[in-house]
Amino acid sequence: MTTHAVRETLGLLADKPHVAAALAVLGQPGSAHAIPTPAAVLDLDAFDRNLAKMAARAARAGLALRPHAKSHKCGFVARRQIAAGAVGVCCAKLAEAEAMAAAGVGAILVTSPVAGPLQAERAARLAAAIPDFRIVVDHADGVAELAAAATGPIQVLIDVDPGLGRTGVHDADQAAEVARAIAAQPNLRLLGVQCYGGNWQHMEGANARAAAVADGMARLKVVLAAIRATGAVFDLVTGGGTGTFAADAAQGVLTEIQPGSFAFMDREYRDALKADPDGAFEQSLAIAATVISANHPKWVTVDAGLKAFSTDGPTPEPLTPKFAASAFRFFGDEHGMLARPVGQPVSRGERVAFAPGHIDPTLDRYDLMHIVQGDILVDIVRIEARGASQ
Amino acid sequence: MTTHAVRETLGLLADKPHVAAALAVLGQPGSAHAIPTPAAVLDLDAFDRNLAKMAARAARAGLALRPHAKSHKCGFVARRQIAAGAVGVCCAKLAEAEAMAAAGVGAILVTSPVAGPLQAERAARLAAAIPDFRIVVDHADGVAELAAAATGPIQVLIDVDPGLGRTGVHDADQAAEVARAIAAQPNLRLLGVQCYGGNWQHMEGANARAAAVADGMARLKVVLAAIRATGAVFDLVTGGGTGTFAADAAQGVLTEIQPGSFAFMDREYRDALKADPDGAFEQSLAIAATVISANHPKWVTVDAGLKAFSTDGPTPEPLTPKFAASAFRFFGDEHGMLARPVGQPVSRGERVAFAPGHIDPTLDRYDLMHIVQGDILVDIVRIEARGASQ
Repeated sequence: MTTHAVRETLGLLADKPHVAAALAVLGQPGSAHAIPTPAAVLDLDAFDRNLAKMAARAARAGLALRPHAKSHKCGFVARRQIAAGAVGVCCAKLAEAEAMAAAGVGAILVTSPVAGPLQAERAARLAAAIPDFRIVVDHADGVAELAAAATGPIQVLIDVDPGLGRTGVHDADQAAEVARAIAAQPNLRLLGVQCYGGNWQHMEGANARAAAVADGMARLKVVLAAIRATGAVFDLVTGGGTGTFAADAAQGVLTEIQPGSFAFMDREYRDALKADPDGAFEQSLAIAATVISANHPKWVTVDAGLKAFSTDGPTPEPLTPKFAASAFRFFGDEHGMLARPVGQPVSRGERVAFAPGHIDPTLDRYDLMHIVQGDILVDIVRIEARGASQ
Repeated sequence: MTTHAVRETLGLLADKPHVAAALAVLGQPGSAHAIPTPAAVLDLDAFDRNLAKMAARAARAGLALRPHAKSHKCGFVARRQIAAGAVGVCCAKLAEAEAMAAAGVGAILVTSPVAGPLQAERAARLAAAIPDFRIVVDHADGVAELAAAATGPIQVLIDVDPGLGRTGVHDADQAAEVARAIAAQPNLRLLGVQCYGGNWQHMEGANARAAAVADGMARLKVVLAAIRATGAVFDLVTGGGTGTFAADAAQGVLTEIQPGSFAFMDREYRDALKADPDGAFEQSLAIAATVISANHPKWVTVDAGLKAFSTDGPTPEPLTPKFAASAFRFFGDEHGMLARPVGQPVSRGERVAFAPGHIDPTLDRYDLMHIVQGDILVDIVRIEARGASQ
């Protein structure tokens, strides 16, 4: 990208001094090491390999691929995923879907149910605005709200609880009730069923994940039969994530998968998946930080703390070879503590890249993604749906 | 505020559907309960009482009050703090200071050292741009970088490590070395010293905090003497937070305090400070959420999860009376699990307000602060420095 084109894309953000500083070095050799920190930095080639690998796995298994945008929140990433073979994206919330639609994404599934007439109206507006909008429901009252708001056809899926108790109809009877409620509404079209086992994704060991998926799919088949017994006709069964790909493909119940983290990876997934084929993706996204104080004999202080990472997963892991054996600890809102590498001096101003512990809530802290190839900053893109959890 | 004026302030954000939905009810009775969630909601009257209480405490103790903007990141809050008697604000990072300066704040102290010529140039630009800019240094190399970047006088403070090892000069010798380095630079003016004990703030019990502050101030006095022995003349000694006010006032070493959380409070501070005078502030900031699924017999699911709160502190605490005894658990990136209250049904669409576990990294997830008085949404303001950790 040219600096001018990037500036146009960023709008007012381009005037912020730390963004202007990155723009000033765009395209120059070594510019990847001059991005003001803390910053989200994407290795474009590794990212593209991740997209190609997942697209190939899905194609071989006969599964449609609909990556989850809750991982990235970014129009650039969504468009690139679709160009690499995805049928569209998933969004967790309406505001995320609205941001993706504004970024030119025309095929979106909202994977959480919404509640209340105002939310239903927003869903109806999205259904009218983009070519292929879909949203899940898990209660007859939600069906009624959507039907009341509809200004044209709305495509819906029944969300089925995989046993987690988070969202979804909880049994075959409730599933059939929701299916009948949908059938009674001329403006609603039942496209299929969603069943996403969020708690299965990070189980350690492929066998453990396979067993959980097998149990869940057995439950799901009962629910699918109950829905079909109401007269509903559909093929689409969507669910699955980065961790359960092999198990989902083996079970053969799902027809579409919704993985998110494979595009970037994080320490939580790498710890759980290790050398399994499900984990064979590269760490393409790093958080870059800088040493801002080096007065202590045992550690140095970097400029990335509780506001630079999520803290729900494992601690961030240094990727920069010099610090590969250095433990990281959070050191308050603004700083991190990084153990000094043995036998190597560290100076103020040195840079360190980290693999985030958990990618989704980490990336949701950043307005911008810095795209690098080798040591060159080649583009800066907005994370348009950052904070769009409404 | 009029809807038109708020729309002007929000710029492009006003066009986002969830923001437009809030704007549509501005000023109406009950509008506080119609804000799309998850959302940061400020009780203006409680907030103003907190500001007045801290201003009065500081005035009685003869301490200048410079609240820390890292808690709020918000121009509206900073300007209101200054109107209520603060001498200016603190900022943790340059990008935060740049955002506060752009929001019309003219007196800013940057409380973390910066590293590298590009950062020094940004500090120099801020020094030239606002009436009263100050920044800490903790190494002679940092002094040299600032001096090289200066285009006019820059006011600096020596950051002194209180024993935490995060930032600051580590002993009297290094302090004197930094003081001499500053004295050798005609464009740098030594204003004073900073010593902030971040680890003292959340100690449980006023006696424990008083003991930690007494130890720290004894160390600080040795460092102050060493700096003054170089010939440096200054009065300003800044530090202290919400948790150590009483101890800081009793010690009499600080001349300026930097509290942040008192304006909003959070569960972490309330758990530690309990009924101490230091904790006698109201919970003025809440995160509003909505029940989006209620199919499970034991709990309901709200639309606020790992992206709506920070997770480093205690878990969020329900403030809505109906859910006062309901435990909250994180339920993935997008959702929270809230135990059903005994004997009371809960429906999809019900709203719940939460006290955040830790306010600073929670508020840093939100672009907007919704200002309410009673049950009326009276204003929506931008959190301009959200994400500005660079």
